[in-house]
This record gives sequence, C-alpha cells and structure tokens, in this order.
Amino acid sequence: MIPKNHPRYESLVLRDKIKNAFKEGYLADSGMIAHGRGETFDYLLGEKTCPPAEEAMKVAVCKLLLAKNPVLSVNGNTTALVIDEIIDLATQLECKIELNLFYRSEERVQIIEKMFKEHGWDDILGTNTSELLNIDGITNPRSTASPEGIYTSDVVLVPLEDGDRAEILVEHGKEIITIDLNPLSRTAQMSTVTIVDNIVRAIPYMTKLAKEYKNYETKDLEKIIKDFNNKENLKKSLDEFKIKQ
Amino acid sequence: MIPKNHPRYESLVLRDKIKNAFKEGYLADSGMIAHGRGETFDYLLGEKTCPPAEEAMKVAVCKLLLAKNPVLSVNGNTTALVIDEIIDLATQLECKIELNLFYRSEERVQIIEKMFKEHGWDDILGTNTSELLNIDGITNPRSTASPEGIYTSDVVLVPLEDGDRAEILVEHGKEIITIDLNPLSRTAQMSTVTIVDNIVRAIPYMTKLAKEYKNYETKDLEKIIKDFNNKENLKKSLDEFKIKQ
Repeated sequence: MIPKNHPRYESLVLRDKIKNAFKEGYLADSGMIAHGRGETFDYLLGEKTCPPAEEAMKVAVCKLLLAKNPVLSVNGNTTALVIDEIIDLATQLECKIELNLFYRSEERVQIIEKMFKEHGWDDILGTNTSELLNIDGITNPRSTASPEGIYTSDVVLVPLEDGDRAEILVEHGKEIITIDLNPLSRTAQMSTVTIVDNIVRAIPYMTKLAKEYKNYETKDLEKIIKDFNNKENLKKSLDEFKIKQ
Repeated sequence: MIPKNHPRYESLVLRDKIKNAFKEGYLADSGMIAHGRGETFDYLLGEKTCPPAEEAMKVAVCKLLLAKNPVLSVNGNTTALVIDEIIDLATQLECKIELNLFYRSEERVQIIEKMFKEHGWDDILGTNTSELLNIDGITNPRSTASPEGIYTSDVVLVPLEDGDRAEILVEHGKEIITIDLNPLSRTAQMSTVTIVDNIVRAIPYMTKLAKEYKNYETKDLEKIIKDFNNKENLKKSLDEFKIKQ
C-alpha cells in the first residue's frame, strides 16, 4: 500500500495500476516502459491539465459529437488506467469502443474483453480476430480494424497510440484525436486534434464536456471547431513544459 | 530483431536489454518503468553527452582514484545496460563492485552474481545477505551495505539510484557520485557529483578518463576536483534539456 501522504502518491497509484495490468497478463512489457516515458512528460508538465489541452478537448468532443461513426480506440495502457472513465465517455457520446493492441495476442484480447464486460460494457469491438479488416488492404498488423467500428469510422479517439497506427488511420482520411503526453511524438504531430495531457485527467474532463455539449446545436459545435489550429495549439502545449527548477 | 536503419535503433536496443533483464528475472517491473522515464529525459537531452556531464565525469574519476575504498554500486538496470563496461571501469580504477537492489530477492541476487562471474568478475560484494550491515544502524532495507564495501567506503558511484538510498549514504558522510538523467531527482540534487547522462555513454567515457588519470599525480587530480561546484554544474545540465522542436 502506498501511504496517502507520499509526495508522489497520485503517480505511484497509476504506476501500480500499470504493474497490475502486466501481472494480470493484458499489458505488454513495452507498455510498462511507455508508461515510464509518460511519467517524465507529465512531471515536466506539472501534472496538471493546461489551457491548450482544454482547448483541444473542447474541439475533440465537438468532433466526436458531430461524427457519423465515432469510435474510442483502447489498448492495454488505456484499459489499465481509465476503463470506467472510457465507458462513461462512450456512454455520453453514444459511440463505440474498439480494442486495438500493438502486441496483439488472443489471451490479451480475451482478458480485456472480459474486463469491459465486468465493468458494464458488453460490446467492445475489435475482439473477433477473424472478422477484422485491413485498412486500405495494407498487410500490416497495425492496419486492422473492425468492419462496424474503426474501419468505417470518420472520427477516432486514439489515446497513447503508436505512430505507425496513427499514420495508417490518417492516410485513410480519418480524423484522428489523440491524447499523448509527448507533444513531439509522430502521433501527436500528425493527429487532427492533439490533447497533450495525462489520460487520467483528460477522459473525465471530456466526459464533462460531452454532457454539456450534447445539448448544443450543430452550428454551435461547428463554431467551437472552426477556429482551432492543431499546429498552433501544439506549440502552446510545448510552451507548458518546464525543465527548470 | 530491430532493423539497424530504424531511426530509434540505439534506443530500441537498450529497451530490448531492459525487457530481457525482466524476462531473465533479475529486473523488477519498476525497473522497466524507470527505464521509460530515463528514455524521455535522454530524448530531451538529445541523446548525447553534454559538456557539464563531461566536467562532472572528470571530477568523479578523480574522486574515485583518490578514494581510500571506492565502490561501484550496481543494480538490475545497471547490470542490464552496462555489465561489461562497469567491469572495465572497476578494473581501471582497481576498485570494488557491490550489488544493491531496491527490490531485493535472493533469486535476483543469485542471477546477477552468476552473470558477473560469467562476464569475468568473481567477487561482487553485497550478495551474502547474512553478512550485510545496516548503515548507522538504520533498520531500513535501503540502508544495507557489505562490511568491506559500501559500509566502509568513502566514495561510492551509485548510478540510477533511489533517493532514499542516496540520502542514507550522504547522511552517513560518504561522497556520492551518481549518474542520473533526471537533474531534478532527489538523488541528483543531493549527490556530491551528479553526472546527467545516459549510463551507456557515461561508463565507457569514465573508463577512458580513468586510464589517462591513473598516471596523474595526486596534486593534479586534486586540481581537477578543486574548482568543481555540483550545484552550478547541475544548473548547466538543466540548460541542456530542450523540449522545443
């Protein structure tokens, strides 16, 4: 047990969730190392949600609400850190959740599918391997998607995503929203909307926004999207990092 | 196999070494997450040895050469990344190597002891648990040290070290040299000499220096140490980090 008065309590709780996910068999070893990379970026970001991330989240939620077939893509790290929060967001957005694993194994797929059922979400897509299609016919394990989910989606939330996967989705013409603590990553650089924030803060904030925005008219959602420039917003996110004492 | 033309080849090779160390049973899961944190800091440092790190290494080698009982402390991450390089450095410095694990288990101790023997170093200290002493009588698993090694040493190299451990050593009056990519860590802040660099670059550089400096006279070594100020050097290291494109 981590003592609640430990100065790094919040961070250590997340680290424990990641370690447990590995022990439970649904997170790859690389997922643990990736979490460490994120820890450093969040530390340098001051472990708080910054104004450019808030702006990006507003636009992201509008895009997801206006989409024809919005999908939230989840992997092992996302499941470990925010399974309930992702379900809440999908519920508010009335959208789909699809599993996509960088290191896919049937065992990992089954564990995560079972977890989502236990947490109240019965129909996670992307679990039936034989049904998956390859985007643009690319024979690459990064290109698979479920027919009714990402394959036919127009807007996809891909948090903590690999650059190759993001590239395939973007080249296919999809609008990609990512949550990535590294503003310099390939995924962050090529996404339509980049939210530079910790997923544990971002998803609940987006759910709050979704509750509010889903009563808005289309033109009001479009207005929020209109003036957003992801490159400019990314520069603002970069300015939030501090490596000074 | 990682293709040699991969833009992140060097980093991925190190990541593989860390994953293998975990699979082989001598690295804790936290060691993998810690490696990820280091990856981010090294990325922001430009993955190169900077002038303030070179300056700190010169002073570190002088201190180790002048010490009465210098010891190189190793853990799972150090073993995974630089076992041969640490042996080379200890050979040049004619000093001891001692094992100290944050998450100590007899199995991990035995694996690492066997590895050092296979790599040509027969007498790694700190492996016989029943012989360990507690520094200053502190009943804390972080305070153990071998009688002929760290317990009686005056200068200890503690790369990739935990803050609690470093604090115990410093409070006991030892001179601590650390290699830590995070210039803001507690270990980095409290060490006598802080080398902000990747251990895979730092150890071979220190060995090169040791070969040269061991022919120097005492007064020349003392001259190199004399003007060094660790706090000022740490500030220079901080300036080397860039989070801009």
